[in-house]
Amino acid sequence: MSTLSPNDSNSESEPPADAEDKTTASHSWLKPSLDWLLVFVPIAIVLRFVPGLDNPTALFIVSCIAIIPLAGWMGHATEHLAERLGQGIGGLLNATFGNAAELIIALFALSKGLDGVVKASITGSIIGNILLVLGLSFLAGGVKFREQKFNRTAASVSATALTLAAIALLLPTIFHLVAEQVPVAQGGWTPAKEQNLSLAIVIVLFATYALTLLFSLVTHKELFVGHQEQGNAFEVGAERTKAEGHGEPWSVKKSVLILLTATAFVALVSEFLVGAVEGARETLGLTEVFVGVIVVAIIGNAAEHSSAILMAMRNKMDLSLGIALGSSLQIALFVAPLLVFASYLFGSPMNLEFTIPEVVAVLASVFIVQQISSDGESNWIEGVQLLSVYAILGILFYFLPEAH
Amino acid sequence: MSTLSPNDSNSESEPPADAEDKTTASHSWLKPSLDWLLVFVPIAIVLRFVPGLDNPTALFIVSCIAIIPLAGWMGHATEHLAERLGQGIGGLLNATFGNAAELIIALFALSKGLDGVVKASITGSIIGNILLVLGLSFLAGGVKFREQKFNRTAASVSATALTLAAIALLLPTIFHLVAEQVPVAQGGWTPAKEQNLSLAIVIVLFATYALTLLFSLVTHKELFVGHQEQGNAFEVGAERTKAEGHGEPWSVKKSVLILLTATAFVALVSEFLVGAVEGARETLGLTEVFVGVIVVAIIGNAAEHSSAILMAMRNKMDLSLGIALGSSLQIALFVAPLLVFASYLFGSPMNLEFTIPEVVAVLASVFIVQQISSDGESNWIEGVQLLSVYAILGILFYFLPEAH
Amino acid sequence: MSTLSPNDSNSESEPPADAEDKTTASHSWLKPSLDWLLVFVPIAIVLRFVPGLDNPTALFIVSCIAIIPLAGWMGHATEHLAERLGQGIGGLLNATFGNAAELIIALFALSKGLDGVVKASITGSIIGNILLVLGLSFLAGGVKFREQKFNRTAASVSATALTLAAIALLLPTIFHLVAEQVPVAQGGWTPAKEQNLSLAIVIVLFATYALTLLFSLVTHKELFVGHQEQGNAFEVGAERTKAEGHGEPWSVKKSVLILLTATAFVALVSEFLVGAVEGARETLGLTEVFVGVIVVAIIGNAAEHSSAILMAMRNKMDLSLGIALGSSLQIALFVAPLLVFASYLFGSPMNLEFTIPEVVAVLASVFIVQQISSDGESNWIEGVQLLSVYAILGILFYFLPEAH
Repeated sequence: MSTLSPNDSNSESEPPADAEDKTTASHSWLKPSLDWLLVFVPIAIVLRFVPGLDNPTALFIVSCIAIIPLAGWMGHATEHLAERLGQGIGGLLNATFGNAAELIIALFALSKGLDGVVKASITGSIIGNILLVLGLSFLAGGVKFREQKFNRTAASVSATALTLAAIALLLPTIFHLVAEQVPVAQGGWTPAKEQNLSLAIVIVLFATYALTLLFSLVTHKELFVGHQEQGNAFEVGAERTKAEGHGEPWSVKKSVLILLTATAFVALVSEFLVGAVEGARETLGLTEVFVGVIVVAIIGNAAEHSSAILMAMRNKMDLSLGIALGSSLQIALFVAPLLVFASYLFGSPMNLEFTIPEVVAVLASVFIVQQISSDGESNWIEGVQLLSVYAILGILFYFLPEAH
Repeated sequence: MSTLSPNDSNSESEPPADAEDKTTASHSWLKPSLDWLLVFVPIAIVLRFVPGLDNPTALFIVSCIAIIPLAGWMGHATEHLAERLGQGIGGLLNATFGNAAELIIALFALSKGLDGVVKASITGSIIGNILLVLGLSFLAGGVKFREQKFNRTAASVSATALTLAAIALLLPTIFHLVAEQVPVAQGGWTPAKEQNLSLAIVIVLFATYALTLLFSLVTHKELFVGHQEQGNAFEVGAERTKAEGHGEPWSVKKSVLILLTATAFVALVSEFLVGAVEGARETLGLTEVFVGVIVVAIIGNAAEHSSAILMAMRNKMDLSLGIALGSSLQIALFVAPLLVFASYLFGSPMNLEFTIPEVVAVLASVFIVQQISSDGESNWIEGVQLLSVYAILGILFYFLPEAH
Repeated sequence: MSTLSPNDSNSESEPPADAEDKTTASHSWLKPSLDWLLVFVPIAIVLRFVPGLDNPTALFIVSCIAIIPLAGWMGHATEHLAERLGQGIGGLLNATFGNAAELIIALFALSKGLDGVVKASITGSIIGNILLVLGLSFLAGGVKFREQKFNRTAASVSATALTLAAIALLLPTIFHLVAEQVPVAQGGWTPAKEQNLSLAIVIVLFATYALTLLFSLVTHKELFVGHQEQGNAFEVGAERTKAEGHGEPWSVKKSVLILLTATAFVALVSEFLVGAVEGARETLGLTEVFVGVIVVAIIGNAAEHSSAILMAMRNKMDLSLGIALGSSLQIALFVAPLLVFASYLFGSPMNLEFTIPEVVAVLASVFIVQQISSDGESNWIEGVQLLSVYAILGILFYFLPEAH
């Protein structure tokens, strides 16, 4: 770091090369940290299977921590794979597998009938990505760069799609509130109607997601080159490669192998986590919604946190926004429908009726993120504003009693 | 269509002349189609008056279809008249008579005491215009042109006026919910208070509309030249004339004659429609709100659908937006107040208290349209997003029971 | 005014010098008017202390009017002081003392246990500033200038902070509605929980305000030079000085002296006002919420009205917006937390639970102001739209019964 290399003229506001080296150094410092957490994987296995060590709270916490590096490796493998296969398929890859860890956790919870935790983790992922992840990104980037710019059209399409998702998540709850005032004989609320309404809405959302992929990967991909709103595994991979000093991405064979191994372990640890969540909840005195909205959502998104924040600190705000907004979109328009479909396969259909505080939290988040992203520029105080909203929503969910 | 004419250099992204001819050809193809529907007018008359053919469902459906070409002719006549009388008066003309068909249908429903259908058709027109019409326009135009631009200031003034309207429509419902918790003796809810509140609000809206006309037709008309937010009958007429290959607009005498004739027939068929709606509803198993929000609103706006979509396909997105947003504005700030005033003349005052799902639908629509129109550009996925919101709102209203 | 002075070329759309002289003349005309109201101060003292003149309604009205010129002098003194001490400290000064009059009135009300009036004056100040003050400013300025521009980034940061505030004010009410459905034994609503939730939220808001000051006074002050979102007492003072024809601002000693004297009288008259409010309310038949939202809020903000409107008419729209939005922000993120902290000192803690109509009013106001300020330009019809929303909210609060 003693010799100054020529400035990268890509951006006028990019800090001189020695600061970049510091970023590389800190990123390398982070990388061993995440891998160090892998030690929690065998600890989780031990806690789960050795008789006499039957402590749900410990198993829950250890499993949560163990997921983080595993999800990180799933992400790495996806990025290297995307870099090998090119931008188009890379984008599609991230668009479908970007939230694989959360999907796996949710499927296990669904199979155990924990519908409340599943729904809470859906809303928690949405607000966690657009408030916590984006807030930390704006803050971290804004402390380094006075002002950061991003493509307004891409951000706008994402924000509007999130609004559509928020409206869709709001309607089944409205339906219940209104329809239960009417006697069943005169057409009032029944669980079957709530289910059919949810299924119909979810089909519309899924179709919209497919068309959104068509828009951003095919017809208007020029808008998203380097600005992939699905997270652009290709670009992120390239950025990481630069930062980590590697010249070549992994081979397809190596990427797929690592991806499958990591996925297998995520599935294993998720099974532990979900098996222990009810016990841990009661011991810690947390509600189902709080666990879903705050805990499961943060753990499931933890690997993406570092990506988005890193991108912001490297002044690639489009990538950062793409990761955060794209992930929320994927949860709402792809993962949630998938989970509803899966619930039918499991034999106990899940509807889309969320608790009122969850609906309010999603609407509030979508409203403030639309304001913040509509002008195409960001600064550190906007990061603080997003984090403040996340904080007060967290406070609300902490005080709320169990839903009845 | 075999020789290429020199490109119209008005817009860089305008397709070559042969595509324009195809549009002309398809528009001419559409024109005979709408006129063909006129055959339903005598069918409606027959169904209504011939004894033994007393089928409310059939009469309702036939009347609905018959309104479409009649409303179309009312629109044509208004446009030709506006072209003759110049932009100023033409704008004023469209600003007051643009929704004449819906106003007539609503007045008949009001006279029969069908307050619920009237209110539902108000909300249905608002959301139908800004979600269905605008969505189809963005989609149709976006499939042809990668990106379409429109004047942000004009769109912004309209979207903000719609927000004002949405707030105004929300407050009487809030008043009822809150005030009915309090005993009447201590100032709680009474029908008289709801009525007075509604009347006061409606007067403010009407005054705001008058001032908005002053803004867009007088003080800031330069913003709207070619971009008339009331629909710019003048411009639309000019566009149609170009497309239809006519050189001259109709004479004032011919326009007025056709306008009066069409209006008379719309009144006649509306009387049939409203007389049959209750019977048809029960047979088809549809609620009053669903009929108002989906059916009556689409029928009443059907003629405007073709205008707005045509304009989008001819890359005149300002006109398209003007028709859609302007129509919604007119319903909320002009037609709704007129109907409330008329209800006093009919002897049974109508208030502005809408059902909760209607309020939620209007708020959601206004929110998403403000997002979409604030950046001054549109693409096909935004059209899909608007149509998706319309679809899930329609699904909600399909499942909702009759309001009690 | 008989000789034309050379045009001030500061702004292309600035009217010629003789119109500026007219503004100076009218401002000078205003100044004696405000001072003339000072006669109500001794009248208030007389009404309060002379036995036999015990009329709460009269005392309330006279005290209200007496506050206006006193708050005006507090404002003058703050501005002159800010001009003397420079922009940085001047901004800080206005950021903390800009709403001193309302803070004093609210502290007296708090000490008398009138929590409802205090909360209503908080919401009333917020919506009064962003609807009434800003509406009058846009209207007055827009009648003079076709179009006025302002810095979008600064307006955007303020509007987003207001959204954060609106969300924070909404959550305690949501908590009450949801938690009271659950029995206390199972974690349901208790006053203590409501209080702790409110306190936690208020701490987050206070911290956010401190960071916002850091943003606008230190790290990004270039954005706000001349555009101080806290009202820029420095700039406003300079503008007034120009208008009033004074060369020099008052000495620090004179400013402090006048500030302290005015503050003392404001405290005195506030004590009268709060002591008489309950009696006046019952006589006039107004609810606690109406008095707080409309009356107290207008009186407390009256001095700022003239500043913001004057700035708009002098085409300094950034200052105007800064005064209006900045004042609302200060109420929500600084004054409200201060009042909650003070309530603990007074021994009867006040929570942040507002009535549903208050929450709806704040959300509606923040929503429409975000729309209107996001494009960086204003015109007269936007002023009308803001005033219309204020009018219909006022109508709602007039009809609402006393909250129970």
